[in-house]
Amino acid sequence: LQNGRGGKLSAVLNRKIQAPPPVWLMRQAGRYLPEYRAARAKAGSFWKLCMDPEAAAEVTLQPVDRFELDAAILFSDILLVPFALGKEVTFEDGSGPRLERTVSADELTRDSADWERKLSPAYRALELLAGRLAPSRDLIGFAGGPWTLASYMAEGQGSNDQRAAKLWGYRDPDGFARLLQRIADCAAYHLCGQIRAGASVVQIFDSWAGGLTERAFRDWVIAPTKRIVDRVRENCGSVRIIGFPRGATLAGYDLYALETGVDAVSVDTAVPMGWAVQNLGGRVVLQGNLDPVLLVAGGSAMREAIDRLVASLECMPFIANLGHGVLPETPVEHVAEFVARVRRAR
Amino acid sequence: LQNGRGGKLSAVLNRKIQAPPPVWLMRQAGRYLPEYRAARAKAGSFWKLCMDPEAAAEVTLQPVDRFELDAAILFSDILLVPFALGKEVTFEDGSGPRLERTVSADELTRDSADWERKLSPAYRALELLAGRLAPSRDLIGFAGGPWTLASYMAEGQGSNDQRAAKLWGYRDPDGFARLLQRIADCAAYHLCGQIRAGASVVQIFDSWAGGLTERAFRDWVIAPTKRIVDRVRENCGSVRIIGFPRGATLAGYDLYALETGVDAVSVDTAVPMGWAVQNLGGRVVLQGNLDPVLLVAGGSAMREAIDRLVASLECMPFIANLGHGVLPETPVEHVAEFVARVRRAR
Repeated sequence: LQNGRGGKLSAVLNRKIQAPPPVWLMRQAGRYLPEYRAARAKAGSFWKLCMDPEAAAEVTLQPVDRFELDAAILFSDILLVPFALGKEVTFEDGSGPRLERTVSADELTRDSADWERKLSPAYRALELLAGRLAPSRDLIGFAGGPWTLASYMAEGQGSNDQRAAKLWGYRDPDGFARLLQRIADCAAYHLCGQIRAGASVVQIFDSWAGGLTERAFRDWVIAPTKRIVDRVRENCGSVRIIGFPRGATLAGYDLYALETGVDAVSVDTAVPMGWAVQNLGGRVVLQGNLDPVLLVAGGSAMREAIDRLVASLECMPFIANLGHGVLPETPVEHVAEFVARVRRAR
Repeated sequence: LQNGRGGKLSAVLNRKIQAPPPVWLMRQAGRYLPEYRAARAKAGSFWKLCMDPEAAAEVTLQPVDRFELDAAILFSDILLVPFALGKEVTFEDGSGPRLERTVSADELTRDSADWERKLSPAYRALELLAGRLAPSRDLIGFAGGPWTLASYMAEGQGSNDQRAAKLWGYRDPDGFARLLQRIADCAAYHLCGQIRAGASVVQIFDSWAGGLTERAFRDWVIAPTKRIVDRVRENCGSVRIIGFPRGATLAGYDLYALETGVDAVSVDTAVPMGWAVQNLGGRVVLQGNLDPVLLVAGGSAMREAIDRLVASLECMPFIANLGHGVLPETPVEHVAEFVARVRRAR
């Protein structure tokens, strides 16, 4: 048991098949929930909500209380790591986050006392959650994947094609590798900090792992992810780690499952689950992958997709989830139906 | 010979291996070229440039003249088909194209005399090009893939996740299938029109084929693409057709090569060419897939990637190209180096 927690999620991550499977949703605390919108309005901004331990803990528990999910995931943001590395981050309504651009790994602070100070609101929130969440539910901590974070940091904002980061990597492979290493070290520190504060499972979100060449995927996704996993195992023991290389090719997913050392892989909506079962399922636990747009649509299309998903994984250790985060326009009752339908399955 | 043209591109599409391979670039006529920027400024807008046969023909030839490429591709836009189907299209600088939203297939005109009138500027441009382009170079016509066009039409603009089209497809599968069929019929009409006007090869650009579930990919990409291919073959003979399901999973590419009937598949940057050679190369001609960002970066990273690409395909019928369109910030001299390096290879 990690931190005294032993939910269905932990069990399945130890490769014990659970029927029905555990269920949680990426971005389960978010704008589709009226109680979230109220807390967000009270906090004044998304970033303040992340940085206020009491408010973050409250928001983290909202979907767990409402839907009786098998796990809570800390309400926070992947940009905490760039923030800890010394970069200003700003969130303005209506546009995505912005941060000071990074042009050299040497700009980034390596002082872990600095990291600790900047990341501590997340740890305080987890400590509160550790006392409030039933021990039969898992508590998930997370960090962004180094490639996704490097993309934000090179561009200074989100980007459809990660052009700035790719250019850096192509023109200055050694300098870019150093950037990824620095990010990976801080991300590993952050995951360990979250485990110490009470997380029983952690997930690495590499949301922009698509569109990379085979070689770039190896160098910019696989290598720094393996570095995180190795450091976490070295420093924090045998915690279970889920990886999410969203948009990777099937060959990329295969490599990710084989080489990074993660215990579970969260697969995106485009990955055929039959393929994943056959090619990844013997090696890693599978998580995913209902299309978040199906959760908006509801109706028979959603119900049939849920049934197919659960049926295709009934003889595997499996975590029912989406292929990406819950969308803001998702009707709350569709989420309730998703959870109930997963649980009704054998 | 289609339309009396018999370039290296046609030869390779007839599965005759060419060494060095033919080379052209997606979006080869574009903002990275000073002569294009001058023509664009003179025309006053992107759409006017598309709709002025003389100007479109001039811009089409610019990169062919400058780099001695093996093929010209008509300067035009995939939104000509929604325009022919009765939708207003507007291009404003600094933002993407917008068009009147479509909410039912019944809104779309089925009158092919209307289609002909609205599409005729493209045919006039091709007629001009047929007289000006050396018969040893191929002339490529194109249309957007039905799924990509449906995404624009449902959303009224470009979209990162094609949410509006997916919602339509999930909630009203029959109505959405009718939409895709109408689009496919007009796209097939447009491809045939371009062939009659002088095109020797055509390409279907399904730029947003990523992120779809296995089932949605079958219904929304494979089925309507097959419909286009079947209609073109039925009405316009044995013209060679290239398909580009950008962002499809490897399983999706496999299905696309197997089931749509295209002669060649253009693969995006993320597809490992070794995989494509082994899994698709026996069935379709391969085109691609240098990362357009590498063409911006230049230097040894670009050169090595070109060498690896050409070497991995030397025993296959192959068309050297990018994995997506040329980016506006691409240095002209990198394009020249790309073409020269492909040709220097055995």
